[in-house]
Amino acid sequence: MSGMGDLIERRFGERVEAEVPSDGAPAVERMLARGVRRAFLDKPVDPALLRTLCAAALSSPTKSDMQQGDILILDDPARRATIFATMPDHPWLAAAPVFLVFLGNNRRQRQIHAWRGKPFANDHLDPFFNAAVDGAIVMATFIAAAEAVGLGCCPISQIRNEARIVSDTLELPEHVFPIAGLAVGWPSREGELSLRLPLDVRVHRDRFDETDLASKIDAYDRRRAAVQPYRRQRDEARFGQVEHYGWSEDKARQYARAERAGFGDYIRSQGIKLD
Amino acid sequence: MSGMGDLIERRFGERVEAEVPSDGAPAVERMLARGVRRAFLDKPVDPALLRTLCAAALSSPTKSDMQQGDILILDDPARRATIFATMPDHPWLAAAPVFLVFLGNNRRQRQIHAWRGKPFANDHLDPFFNAAVDGAIVMATFIAAAEAVGLGCCPISQIRNEARIVSDTLELPEHVFPIAGLAVGWPSREGELSLRLPLDVRVHRDRFDETDLASKIDAYDRRRAAVQPYRRQRDEARFGQVEHYGWSEDKARQYARAERAGFGDYIRSQGIKLD
Repeated sequence: MSGMGDLIERRFGERVEAEVPSDGAPAVERMLARGVRRAFLDKPVDPALLRTLCAAALSSPTKSDMQQGDILILDDPARRATIFATMPDHPWLAAAPVFLVFLGNNRRQRQIHAWRGKPFANDHLDPFFNAAVDGAIVMATFIAAAEAVGLGCCPISQIRNEARIVSDTLELPEHVFPIAGLAVGWPSREGELSLRLPLDVRVHRDRFDETDLASKIDAYDRRRAAVQPYRRQRDEARFGQVEHYGWSEDKARQYARAERAGFGDYIRSQGIKLD
Repeated sequence: MSGMGDLIERRFGERVEAEVPSDGAPAVERMLARGVRRAFLDKPVDPALLRTLCAAALSSPTKSDMQQGDILILDDPARRATIFATMPDHPWLAAAPVFLVFLGNNRRQRQIHAWRGKPFANDHLDPFFNAAVDGAIVMATFIAAAEAVGLGCCPISQIRNEARIVSDTLELPEHVFPIAGLAVGWPSREGELSLRLPLDVRVHRDRFDETDLASKIDAYDRRRAAVQPYRRQRDEARFGQVEHYGWSEDKARQYARAERAGFGDYIRSQGIKLD
């Protein structure tokens, strides 16, 4: 099992050695080794394989059996071009063999109420939350299935940067909304294993625990800088150059600018109540 | 590959036969065969295995590398009892060997801003959405890893029914919120493969498509009633008995009552802005 132990140590900076039932070990090891992939071979993904992976993704758990997460396969070149133009930071998307958009769908549930003659009593935040979570579960399960067969994936939350344009281009009706895009293909290079916060920071026991968080984040910044230094400092014009540029400095610079501040307006304009 | 073809046909009512690269086939077949598990052997889950599965879950993609999904392992009997008492419909939870709560965490990002001396410019819906999606991805990836090694899982969205009690019991600070619970253990029985809406209903091509949706849902209701009939009709006192009681009738009856209408108030009381 040292393969898994090594992977956990590389990513989280902590040694964990477990007895993993052998028939499940390859799947878990693959998940521990995963990395984002943005470079793909010029080789199509067989449509039957893609449909099988969609079936695996849609076999995942769904809140109250309501099935509120959908998948949209985006092939049409004109619609792709319109949507990719809203994300100029990702020119590589044009070469993605498969591009999916995961959707939250509260609309079907409402239609069922009309067809079965029942009042709809849930016009508040919870159904929106459930559909977002359902769609995210579908996406994560799709990624696990796709990576199990050797495909590479890159999720794209920036698809919500211009949510109205994307929504209109995909003809999303009221009560349907995009969660994230996903580029998929046969990878042309190894993925990079990105270092993550220590397990102690994100795995709590019995109660939320942030003991020594600041020093744990300092140590993470240093551990990461040693093997995956940032190639550039974000927003130098505004914040200047610092000597020790780590994860926390980068994330704080990122959210010092507003991102998708109009997303709430878009969601409300889809008829969704957030009360 | 007929194992996968059979599983897809049973669950979705459609035959799909794909060439799946053989080293990934067992993982995908297991995902296609999955079912919810609520009955567990009286056998502990080794803590090192649980930590390895948490590591696999936290190796999943995360929006902008922000790492806003956390895991809480709930062992303490007193806190378990308080939380399970908010979900009296699930008495079986008391026997779950492992109980996890997946959290969305916007707090760490805000702390980083304070420590790095940067303004926080994102007090609106998008960060809440991202943390919910991140936490859901962590949960779905945990489930895929756990089921790969033979563990059984049951997600519990009802943990948000009394979100304030749960939140206080777990000592969640501002900008941290529960997404779902998860019961985990070595299953004592086979899971049931729950039938799902046809792939055509939830997998769209290039644009949102609901062609013939009403008749597809009617057919799904009938397909499902033939093999997984409901054992009781929901809310009979209000809606009476119908002859053909299917999925759509059950879901319409469910959301004819308000569920978690106070969830928005709870989220706002955690200091989270939904504008």
